[in-house]
Amino acid sequence: MEILEEVCEKGVIERRFDLTVNGEVVPGIHWLPEAVTVPHPTVLIGHGGTQHKRVPNVLGLARTLVRHGGFGVVALDAPGHGDRMTEEQKRERADLLARRSGDRLAPLSERRIRAMSGVAAQAIAEWKALLDVLATNPQWAPGPFGYWGVSMGTAFGIPLLASEPRIVAGVLGLGALREGSEEVGQQAARITIPLLFLFQWYDELMTREGGLALWDAFGAEEKTMHINPGPHVGIPLFERDAALAFYRRHFDG
Amino acid sequence: MEILEEVCEKGVIERRFDLTVNGEVVPGIHWLPEAVTVPHPTVLIGHGGTQHKRVPNVLGLARTLVRHGGFGVVALDAPGHGDRMTEEQKRERADLLARRSGDRLAPLSERRIRAMSGVAAQAIAEWKALLDVLATNPQWAPGPFGYWGVSMGTAFGIPLLASEPRIVAGVLGLGALREGSEEVGQQAARITIPLLFLFQWYDELMTREGGLALWDAFGAEEKTMHINPGPHVGIPLFERDAALAFYRRHFDG
Repeated sequence: MEILEEVCEKGVIERRFDLTVNGEVVPGIHWLPEAVTVPHPTVLIGHGGTQHKRVPNVLGLARTLVRHGGFGVVALDAPGHGDRMTEEQKRERADLLARRSGDRLAPLSERRIRAMSGVAAQAIAEWKALLDVLATNPQWAPGPFGYWGVSMGTAFGIPLLASEPRIVAGVLGLGALREGSEEVGQQAARITIPLLFLFQWYDELMTREGGLALWDAFGAEEKTMHINPGPHVGIPLFERDAALAFYRRHFDG
Repeated sequence: MEILEEVCEKGVIERRFDLTVNGEVVPGIHWLPEAVTVPHPTVLIGHGGTQHKRVPNVLGLARTLVRHGGFGVVALDAPGHGDRMTEEQKRERADLLARRSGDRLAPLSERRIRAMSGVAAQAIAEWKALLDVLATNPQWAPGPFGYWGVSMGTAFGIPLLASEPRIVAGVLGLGALREGSEEVGQQAARITIPLLFLFQWYDELMTREGGLALWDAFGAEEKTMHINPGPHVGIPLFERDAALAFYRRHFDG
């Protein structure tokens, strides 16, 4: 993990780093509480499709968790996102964003879903490599670890949480079981850590039935689904505080 | 409002009172923060069927809201409940509780639903009379007012919130739209204050479809549905903290 830059703003250290995993450079950010020198929990944030490690909702959530929870937070650019986009991926992203209609995103194409599935294993390997590195510094990140990721962050988060015992609490959302997604349902059933699942009632990309079925499929004994009105991009800001309270409850235990 | 007794325990004043409404005595409890002498918001708690103003979940919630929110809290015995039960109602209650199976309640009979509807108008008149009295003491209860009530507390809470402008935020739950309950749906549509709606996925008295349809019917722009696994009686304790955060957000605004 190579630290490229460090700034501090309003009590939050922001450390830009590159992590090399299987020969590929993965750019990331590590946010840390300035005032805290004792070990503290760390939350991994998986951004959504077309987003990157420092979009406003990731940055806002990270700062909330650092300032009010005293946690560390790490975000990585997912494969094909942020600083990792090829020229072709940049054109595809611009095209996709241009096809938005008001606050509604362009429908998920089968091609995009396949592309996401194709890099899921890579994204998971990168999160696991990050945990290996973080754990070598007991002052900053001895755990426990949490995960937060909605939409694509949930598409990658489900197989991650199903296979990563170092993560003890997860916030997922904006995901749904689809026709033919039996494997996702099976992975969901293997997740037994406490979950908070965020869903939008007027999500233009996910069906209500599929969202409820995904929540229902999770193997966790403690799992709460928060449904709010509004489209895919539009989770209310107060759900950040709900996530903070959720992590606090489980990191303390 | 006649105050019959006052005790103070761990920072919470508990004041037993009788309120006379339309010639009938309504027993209630007013919980207040011991340390606070400034005006503060007040939450009305409507208990569930077979319960009363001081069952453990009401008392626990009241103490949480007083201690951590600095709010006042009031609970009333609903018509035919608590100290207002006739001998026949006591026998009916004992019979109903005897018909529980493990943690599952006996099914709601048409007769009980009719009995509840029959006293809804009376219960609402009593809450409104209470608000009239509370408002005469600006030190303790100038408002804003919140409401918390699930199950029967929601059956009464929906028409109350639909017609009572002094209540600015409501926590409802364990309710569902039923065949022939168009009037409830219409009342729900008239509720535009922020709502938190608590639902249990394995509720033996309410259907999932009906619960989702009720939440969907609320006219509020801000409305969040929290779904947890478990039976009718079994809302997780952490939802008390969610209610506290919800009231804080809206009372501050």
